[in-house]
Amino acid sequence: MAEQETAARPDFISRLEAAVSRCQNPTVLGLDPKLEYLPASLLQKARADCASPEEAVETALFEFNRSLIDAVKDIIPCVKPQLAYYELYGLPGLKALERTIKYARQQGLLVIADGKRNDIGSTSAAYARAWLDQWDADALTVNAYLGQDGIKPFIETAGAEGKGLFMLVRTSNPSAADLQDLQLADGRRLYEAVADLLNQWSDMLPRAQSGYNLLGAVVGATWPQQARQLRLRLPRAYILVPGYGAQGATAQDCMASFDRQGRGALVNASRSLMLAYRRDPAFEGKDEALAEACRAEAMRMRSSLQAALENHCG
Amino acid sequence: MAEQETAARPDFISRLEAAVSRCQNPTVLGLDPKLEYLPASLLQKARADCASPEEAVETALFEFNRSLIDAVKDIIPCVKPQLAYYELYGLPGLKALERTIKYARQQGLLVIADGKRNDIGSTSAAYARAWLDQWDADALTVNAYLGQDGIKPFIETAGAEGKGLFMLVRTSNPSAADLQDLQLADGRRLYEAVADLLNQWSDMLPRAQSGYNLLGAVVGATWPQQARQLRLRLPRAYILVPGYGAQGATAQDCMASFDRQGRGALVNASRSLMLAYRRDPAFEGKDEALAEACRAEAMRMRSSLQAALENHCG
Repeated sequence: MAEQETAARPDFISRLEAAVSRCQNPTVLGLDPKLEYLPASLLQKARADCASPEEAVETALFEFNRSLIDAVKDIIPCVKPQLAYYELYGLPGLKALERTIKYARQQGLLVIADGKRNDIGSTSAAYARAWLDQWDADALTVNAYLGQDGIKPFIETAGAEGKGLFMLVRTSNPSAADLQDLQLADGRRLYEAVADLLNQWSDMLPRAQSGYNLLGAVVGATWPQQARQLRLRLPRAYILVPGYGAQGATAQDCMASFDRQGRGALVNASRSLMLAYRRDPAFEGKDEALAEACRAEAMRMRSSLQAALENHCG
Repeated sequence: MAEQETAARPDFISRLEAAVSRCQNPTVLGLDPKLEYLPASLLQKARADCASPEEAVETALFEFNRSLIDAVKDIIPCVKPQLAYYELYGLPGLKALERTIKYARQQGLLVIADGKRNDIGSTSAAYARAWLDQWDADALTVNAYLGQDGIKPFIETAGAEGKGLFMLVRTSNPSAADLQDLQLADGRRLYEAVADLLNQWSDMLPRAQSGYNLLGAVVGATWPQQARQLRLRLPRAYILVPGYGAQGATAQDCMASFDRQGRGALVNASRSLMLAYRRDPAFEGKDEALAEACRAEAMRMRSSLQAALENHCG
């Protein structure tokens, strides 16, 4: 398993806040490397350089991620590999994931493994050890449908390893309301009940100086009204905000998840950063613009978030 | 990706029912190979035979699974690898998973990948292709917290590939009630609302002759009262029943999920079968009894289920 000196590692929130402060940016770069997203020249080079198609896939996915990480490592504090896109390519995909996590951490970025894992207690314990120890991500997204005994092992492992969690509360997708907005007999919506359980489970956890602890929440930016209410309802939860960019939310929409000091939330962008080289007319869809276009879009996004935060806190 | 002739493959339910009928047994063997579960001699042999510790882990996990599969392949129709236990061991674990899925299918068993995957639509589509095509499992467990657009891609891929799904409705763990039993304003419990959504999403899917279709449900045997009610509420859903054995449910408890013809459900057992060699006094905990003890316990479990089914249908 991973290193033994984890006990000495600072807690997740302190590391996260230091990284956000270093970059002056609460952005998370989503690393969802579908082969279709890769520049054709990068794929061709990998195929030419590698001995087998499997090795070419691994190399191409990793090199794509490495280019993006290198392009933004001084201005973006975290990456979020979506595990589905690595599982999709079998073992070569997962080898690329392993190399991506290691590389991002070596470059000083925090890694949020987006797996939305969930199971009964004994199996949750295995998932927690898998992602927060064996694969050595800094944080993992989890789904609470199985209740407390399915979440407790994640909290225990995260605490022991100086790692973090983001628990789904209100997701960013159009059908989020199907279950999450169901009205309960006591007047709450289901997502509010999930938020209340999160509070209950995180009540006794040690807090960083800022007041946040290792059990964070996922709250989509596409539903700002719910997000504003959840920010107040979840005073100790750092909030991971998906939905910016390709899913339609603006920097202003994301403000709902930040506290009055402009802290307590991270804004994820995946396609808008990964695919900037195709979408930004300045780069004319040129392969070699992958890194440059991603950085330009990351700078724009940071400026938008900084301006919105100034307004939000002012 | 996987083979191209999937269009010609019979649908999941027909294949499943043929396999259950061949074995006269609705049991699923859960393959959750923690290293601690393996016979010491098997681990030692793998370490002696392999060039690296990683290869030894892969070999040991796969050989454990192969012994169990070989021991029961004529009397158990399905295996259910729990993905967490393979992720736990990193790439060597996932290599063992790949070999296990391939081997089980070669031996004529159906493979249910237990991953409880869930995400927004574009990512669900990646998970669906990953597990039902790339890794070529016959079915996948999924979690519906994100609503219809998170489940639809799984249904589409399963339909195209002749594969199946089992959606979490009421789980077997002690804290299942935390969320799943919440009372809604309209009088239903949350798990009933989830069951109703399952029905709605599966309404238009083609059915096998028995009336079941590719969108099944997970309903724990540890809560027979809810299971009885859900059997009636989910007339088209094949039900995957966890909770037998180590989690405390009996063959009688499992009957709640079978229809009056004794069909429509699968009963999973993991630890009670995998660890029979340690638990059954007849084998004195001897390493070499792994296969024999698993088979003896599988025969006992089959007899118990057959007797209970006879009573249930009589």
